[in-house]
Amino acid sequence: MTDTNAELDDRARQLDREHVFHSWSAQAGLAPLVIASGRGSRVWDHAGNTYLDFSSQLVNTNIGHQHPSVISAITEQAQILTTVAPAAANLTRGEAARRIVRRAPSRHNKVFFTNGGADANENAIRMARLHTGRDTVLSTYRSYHGNTGAAVVATGDWRRVPNEYARGHVHFFGPYLYRSEFWATTPEQESERALRHLERVIQSEGASSIAAILLETIPGTAGVLVPPPGYLAGVRALADRYGIVLILDEVMAGFGRTGRWFAFDGYDVEPDLITFAKGVNSGYVPAGGVIISDEIAADFDETVFPGGLTYSGHPLAMAAIVGTLDAMDAEGIVENAATIGRDHLAPGLAALAEKHSIIGEVRGEGVFWALELVADRDSREPVSGAVVGRLKKELLARGLLPFTADNRIHVVPPAIVTADEVAEALTTYDEVFSLDLS
Amino acid sequence: MTDTNAELDDRARQLDREHVFHSWSAQAGLAPLVIASGRGSRVWDHAGNTYLDFSSQLVNTNIGHQHPSVISAITEQAQILTTVAPAAANLTRGEAARRIVRRAPSRHNKVFFTNGGADANENAIRMARLHTGRDTVLSTYRSYHGNTGAAVVATGDWRRVPNEYARGHVHFFGPYLYRSEFWATTPEQESERALRHLERVIQSEGASSIAAILLETIPGTAGVLVPPPGYLAGVRALADRYGIVLILDEVMAGFGRTGRWFAFDGYDVEPDLITFAKGVNSGYVPAGGVIISDEIAADFDETVFPGGLTYSGHPLAMAAIVGTLDAMDAEGIVENAATIGRDHLAPGLAALAEKHSIIGEVRGEGVFWALELVADRDSREPVSGAVVGRLKKELLARGLLPFTADNRIHVVPPAIVTADEVAEALTTYDEVFSLDLS
Repeated sequence: MTDTNAELDDRARQLDREHVFHSWSAQAGLAPLVIASGRGSRVWDHAGNTYLDFSSQLVNTNIGHQHPSVISAITEQAQILTTVAPAAANLTRGEAARRIVRRAPSRHNKVFFTNGGADANENAIRMARLHTGRDTVLSTYRSYHGNTGAAVVATGDWRRVPNEYARGHVHFFGPYLYRSEFWATTPEQESERALRHLERVIQSEGASSIAAILLETIPGTAGVLVPPPGYLAGVRALADRYGIVLILDEVMAGFGRTGRWFAFDGYDVEPDLITFAKGVNSGYVPAGGVIISDEIAADFDETVFPGGLTYSGHPLAMAAIVGTLDAMDAEGIVENAATIGRDHLAPGLAALAEKHSIIGEVRGEGVFWALELVADRDSREPVSGAVVGRLKKELLARGLLPFTADNRIHVVPPAIVTADEVAEALTTYDEVFSLDLS
Repeated sequence: MTDTNAELDDRARQLDREHVFHSWSAQAGLAPLVIASGRGSRVWDHAGNTYLDFSSQLVNTNIGHQHPSVISAITEQAQILTTVAPAAANLTRGEAARRIVRRAPSRHNKVFFTNGGADANENAIRMARLHTGRDTVLSTYRSYHGNTGAAVVATGDWRRVPNEYARGHVHFFGPYLYRSEFWATTPEQESERALRHLERVIQSEGASSIAAILLETIPGTAGVLVPPPGYLAGVRALADRYGIVLILDEVMAGFGRTGRWFAFDGYDVEPDLITFAKGVNSGYVPAGGVIISDEIAADFDETVFPGGLTYSGHPLAMAAIVGTLDAMDAEGIVENAATIGRDHLAPGLAALAEKHSIIGEVRGEGVFWALELVADRDSREPVSGAVVGRLKKELLARGLLPFTADNRIHVVPPAIVTADEVAEALTTYDEVFSLDLS
């Protein structure tokens, strides 16, 4: 190999622009960052430019980059068996399923594995429809549940609009006090009114038509919308009252991101179906799935479940799950996320907000935070896309890889992030917010 | 580890039954085969029971089990970077895309990567709808395109029926001379009449409403329905006449299964969009994608493509693609599939059919064959499920892992299968067909 490192970066960029079609983008103007490798909370290109990864890529590398135990688990399984049909039994798959259900509520004992979060939601919706004999799925406008044909219409944000090819999905408003849809002024009021709104939607659509309420426990891409007190318990009560299946989407919020195994562990709520992906193995090998309550699983003891996929329970993905969950246990990674959130990110981001009026609100817990950026604190008018673009560029220039969405910066480092790395990031955010961004 | 090997098999079975929810199955009666490991055309359990894999699992291990170059490619990439956001540029991803487009028609230069075949079809449908500004997707009843919300309704077989939550999908009949829908008696007549039927569906639905015709080049699970002369060229002509995008689904048929890189290379047809998965890396790491014509790709130069997924272009999957395609080239694996098909499976299966009246028809090419089993050769009445179940059991008892679907046995070994292994399998099939199966 005579290529210099800089030439490798050039080649990566050139092949990318010639042959790789990118997600959620116009293709012509793209100038993607080259990422060649990483370790822990950092990634780098071939030339050695290093970035502190406060995006966790797409909020998936909860265990950080290149965790040695997970790499070992993958490479060991690769020597034994890389692929097997879902119809077979495979020990690694069983071990992965066992480790997942052990962390779920006790009435959840079976896992249906998928390739990622979208098909996890697809299959949860399928189960809910078959369990209830009903059609409609309720989900919030501020949500993302994947972009396959059913999941994308369950999705509430703009990515649904050009993809609306299905029926049976109804959207409602969830709680979001900072931009309340309910003229609420306190968290308690927002919770109460959001529940009243949901119940009115259920009644107006006709409860007997509604199969499922599908919610991200903490809506993620929509802005880390931590639910107000009593909201999720209230949704559970409505689901029970009207015979509706409650699906909690833990694709982004689950497996340590909040400082708990599942985000819902922090609320007085137990879902019927739990969907997951990302953090379950930090995306080291594509995987997702549905954790199924005994009651719903029993529906399919004698009746065929009409769903499936070639790579369901893929051995490498399963090995990565076993490696990830064992390492998270052994190293107290979930506890680290909780401590970092409570002792470092919460006070650090609050201090930033005190200093910089562009920050309208700070929300989050664990390693799952959003800074809501506003042009004006009183009107709460979001900053423009140009300002967010400028911020992103300045953060990258200072070696911090950020996650941005709409008018927000999401502060979403790996759950293994250290106090020193948080301090470094806070200094960088502070520097960049101090610039003239207009 | 004090477990004996037999105990490991027991544990695999036990964990499977307790915690793993299976695809396309009623869960109570399952007694899955344990597969612990494999090599080439064979798999085995922990206790050492070995099976000649004439299923290629779900018709995906074209390169066989545990090919050392692919394992090396995966483990080497695992040391460097296991996961990266789709928005980044990554050299392994570019190298994978380059190798894929090199095998596609020259006007196809970009690849959108997905996790598997279903989301490949999802995204191809999305592109076709946005390209044409039309809604309807035509596909055949005898087809399988995946089971997410749009893909499953595009699917024509029974797996569509319990999943019909979308609009905009219309199904028609494809050619299938053995059970002709068109009262045809020759391949030429079947082709002509199937084209006439498709044109009448287009006209009756209204050509201006139709975005895409989506076809498996050779419908796979539906029965390895090799298209008759002129059919695919005729479909291309209809697509051109009415301004419809032609999507060829090469998920099962592509990457060597037919003895060609793409199944459509054997016909006078060039699709606008090509979907793939399985054989591209033999499923060693979950991956799929869409190969996009320059014309359709250009639509999204300045316009956002509204689709994406976290694991698009996943580095381990990409490394497995690079390793697989390079090894297939270096070792002449596609040529092997062609030779095996022509010199061994074609004559061998024809001889079986001559001997056993249960075989109503033999269809296929390369390592992609179906035996259509009938209770009566004149009426062509399919054998019962009980007979197929009995055959499957007897084949397994003799160390052959078969692929069965409806009233058929699909003979779908890896593309690396040897003449000796084919001879061994033919002997086993012969033995089992010689039993009293009633």
